[in-house]
Amino acid sequence: MAVAASRRDFLRSVGVAGGAGVLYSTMGALGLAPVPDARAEAYRPPSRGDFTLGGRAAKKVLILGAGIAGLAAAYELGKAGYDCRVLEAKDRPGGRNWTVRGGTAETDLDGRTQRAAFSDGQYMNAGPARLPQSHVTLDYCRELGVQLEVFTNQNANAYLHHENVPGALAGRPVRWRTAKADVYGYVSELLAKATDQGSLDAELTADDKERLLSFLRNFGAINGRSDGWTYTGGNRRGYSVEPGAGLESGTVLGPVPSMSDVIASGLGTRFSFEFGYDQAMLMFQPVGGMDAIPRALAEATGRRRLTYGAEVTAVTNRDDGAEVTWRDGRGRVRTETADFVVAAIPPMVMARVRHNLGDDVSAALRHPTPTPVGKIGLEYRRRWWELDEHVYGGITNTDLDLSTIWYPSYGFHGRRGTVIGYYNFGDNALAYSRLGHEARLARALDRGVRIHGEKYRSEVDRSFSVAWHRTPFIEAGWVGWPSQTGPEYRLLNQPAGHVYFAGDWLSHAIAWQHGAFTSARKVVTEIHERTLSA
Amino acid sequence: MAVAASRRDFLRSVGVAGGAGVLYSTMGALGLAPVPDARAEAYRPPSRGDFTLGGRAAKKVLILGAGIAGLAAAYELGKAGYDCRVLEAKDRPGGRNWTVRGGTAETDLDGRTQRAAFSDGQYMNAGPARLPQSHVTLDYCRELGVQLEVFTNQNANAYLHHENVPGALAGRPVRWRTAKADVYGYVSELLAKATDQGSLDAELTADDKERLLSFLRNFGAINGRSDGWTYTGGNRRGYSVEPGAGLESGTVLGPVPSMSDVIASGLGTRFSFEFGYDQAMLMFQPVGGMDAIPRALAEATGRRRLTYGAEVTAVTNRDDGAEVTWRDGRGRVRTETADFVVAAIPPMVMARVRHNLGDDVSAALRHPTPTPVGKIGLEYRRRWWELDEHVYGGITNTDLDLSTIWYPSYGFHGRRGTVIGYYNFGDNALAYSRLGHEARLARALDRGVRIHGEKYRSEVDRSFSVAWHRTPFIEAGWVGWPSQTGPEYRLLNQPAGHVYFAGDWLSHAIAWQHGAFTSARKVVTEIHERTLSA
Repeated sequence: MAVAASRRDFLRSVGVAGGAGVLYSTMGALGLAPVPDARAEAYRPPSRGDFTLGGRAAKKVLILGAGIAGLAAAYELGKAGYDCRVLEAKDRPGGRNWTVRGGTAETDLDGRTQRAAFSDGQYMNAGPARLPQSHVTLDYCRELGVQLEVFTNQNANAYLHHENVPGALAGRPVRWRTAKADVYGYVSELLAKATDQGSLDAELTADDKERLLSFLRNFGAINGRSDGWTYTGGNRRGYSVEPGAGLESGTVLGPVPSMSDVIASGLGTRFSFEFGYDQAMLMFQPVGGMDAIPRALAEATGRRRLTYGAEVTAVTNRDDGAEVTWRDGRGRVRTETADFVVAAIPPMVMARVRHNLGDDVSAALRHPTPTPVGKIGLEYRRRWWELDEHVYGGITNTDLDLSTIWYPSYGFHGRRGTVIGYYNFGDNALAYSRLGHEARLARALDRGVRIHGEKYRSEVDRSFSVAWHRTPFIEAGWVGWPSQTGPEYRLLNQPAGHVYFAGDWLSHAIAWQHGAFTSARKVVTEIHERTLSA
Repeated sequence: MAVAASRRDFLRSVGVAGGAGVLYSTMGALGLAPVPDARAEAYRPPSRGDFTLGGRAAKKVLILGAGIAGLAAAYELGKAGYDCRVLEAKDRPGGRNWTVRGGTAETDLDGRTQRAAFSDGQYMNAGPARLPQSHVTLDYCRELGVQLEVFTNQNANAYLHHENVPGALAGRPVRWRTAKADVYGYVSELLAKATDQGSLDAELTADDKERLLSFLRNFGAINGRSDGWTYTGGNRRGYSVEPGAGLESGTVLGPVPSMSDVIASGLGTRFSFEFGYDQAMLMFQPVGGMDAIPRALAEATGRRRLTYGAEVTAVTNRDDGAEVTWRDGRGRVRTETADFVVAAIPPMVMARVRHNLGDDVSAALRHPTPTPVGKIGLEYRRRWWELDEHVYGGITNTDLDLSTIWYPSYGFHGRRGTVIGYYNFGDNALAYSRLGHEARLARALDRGVRIHGEKYRSEVDRSFSVAWHRTPFIEAGWVGWPSQTGPEYRLLNQPAGHVYFAGDWLSHAIAWQHGAFTSARKVVTEIHERTLSA
């Protein structure tokens, strides 16, 4: 055990220098730079060299699921020569990381088949679509040579649209820039008034007050003390006629809605999305489609290690390993044994696999709640959002059941473009998934017309929709745990004999590929340490 | 004149449908969509067809300067068959639109020569570097096939850095995301307290108050009424240890500075930059360098129409046209006449050209004030900002004389990268331009180390600096007018006989290519209408 412990310490300490997961000790040591973001854990991938001293050999590992967690586990274990085989029920790698292009076909759990007819070069990322800067996913992109471009998570020219609110702004699409100008303007007016009239003297020194007032004038573009700190609009709202040559100084967008209407609109409650740790710009996407990540992982792992069309039916833990039974693409039942098994499939799917891991494992697998999630891709003949509205990427938020409309982050100024017509959750996702594709499309277009006008319907050409909760072997956008400190979550984060569980659902980055990658790294480290200390 | 007027009206009205400049009448007609941004003016390019009815012929035009305004004038007039010749003193098109690559050489007005040694694929946009979504520049990119990618004007992971402020944050680089979390948190706390204690009852109804409090809880991530609406930090600040697999829920960055320190830091005054009409994300840049625009314009205009190394010495207005004298690349004096001349060079440069346009023109040309502007490009051996700090593009603001540090918007995850080490104006630009390049570099690195640590100096490999106010035939980053309604500005926005003036300096988008393009369109339209109505 002493050997194992020191080996473990060695793995941890060397991890600072190596591999995809890098810690930032140098910056901290400077004492100058801000405390940097750091990985949850130093990670050093297993390597063949780890076996040279102890005379131990890499083991055989069967991995269930070729989603990000399963692929990452196979890829990382492969670095040390583990004999991995990945069993995937679908006919492609990636799991929920799925890019739909022309020719993509899928049959859902209700027996409805769609075949995408998107034009060449057009695609929709049906699953994950954005990568935050600090996620380990970016390190994998670097290591695997997956090219990145900016994902346009925020755009001042996109819209906010609330129908079910009181006041004059109800039902009116308002550009993000305009809503920000008005909300920040009125908030600054109110706080400046309260500050200047002494209402906050218990909180603020005289210096604080003067500095705060100076900040608010700048932040809200409000008038000064002599004008009562009022917000009266300004060019941050945008222009109805843009400034140009000669005497054309532009016409600022107006009129400015009242403070009460702006507050009642609730549009300001959308802003905080941008402040989220995982959602703040800049965000990124792989060039050509998100599935560049699983495709690169599969390639680096070795195609011969991946078996598609393999639907796992049983997992049996043994004293000296584990056994997996599956039906192959031709319906034949196969069984294989290995030293370890990594179950990297959704918990509600794993819950239906026969196993001998105990009732508490079965119960724990059924403990988290699947989240319904839907998306529709709309290919237009013309990029009207760029041409007519100067919206180059970004997201419109609405309180209609669409939730969001996404303008594409690729193909700027191209002939065609593919908009995400809804990306919604919960009841909204359920409402759309009950419909067939054509009815989903009609409903999504009906809603979109209320924001963008009739062209939103008339210029659409091709479409494809996905309901993750009705997709075989996926069955949810993601899951939510009642508690991530409870016994069920803890149980599945430990091996059940020789069987390990992995996936974003076993992380604190649920619904992010980062969660799948870090979960895979955790299991890989555990298997490697167990192998080395055996 | 009646014919001319109706023809003019026709040009204007047809402009709605045609060409690069598109108006958005359909949206407005819907009555649903928000009032869209619109061009300052409908624009329809001249076309050969315009001459078929009247029997008139396109004229000969000499254009001074192959900057954006001069090139755009030649390109647009060329569409109708005007015989244009562009005289350019430098050996390249673009003017201030200048991309510096390995091999680029320039000698400044102080006789200092630099030759850039940037690696293959590395470049700096020495002049304009960002394109707003609504500027007509994007329409030209589309028309000319110039590919675009996102310019990373904002990044939550970049830093704010104020040394010359009171309080505990002085001299500490703070990520934009962290500064926003703290400022918005404390602002929300203060306004919630004032609102809840009734200090703003004269401004707010009971409904307003409840809705405002609900907004502030969301906007500032503050505690509720029972906890006194306090801001106590949260994960919008960022993490010192990022959430990951298993039980790793992450460690939120701390400690949270006091309200007084946050206000004193002045960091919040930087936020409004993002709200600016021309600076809000999304922004764009041409793939491969900003000079893709002038190169495409020059190509579309026809290379034979461009004469480089031509330094204009005299412009003479005649009864039936105008005459231009220049020294060619071999020092020979050349003279040519034309129907019209478009002077698309900086006003202070034009002011030194001999002319017979009157003393008021000379005085008007000297009326605007040139702005000193400087930039330095720093090529690093390693993209430490991405690898060590998770900063993928964006801009750091500092109150040091650098003003800003820009991380590149291209080449993510590549081996090398080129940072803009300063982009500064006025006294800061003058201070750097007084130095030779090596001293500028040393000074810029000395400052940058205070933000990024010693690697900022030790890992730099190659560099190039530009001082626009000391660059031949350019002599400023841009100019500022005391008034854009005064007689001098108005005078130069009219032709002086057969001589027209064009450039961003004759627009309400000074320092933007949009200003140059719209000014060129204005002059082109005037020349074409004059030709058609002659």
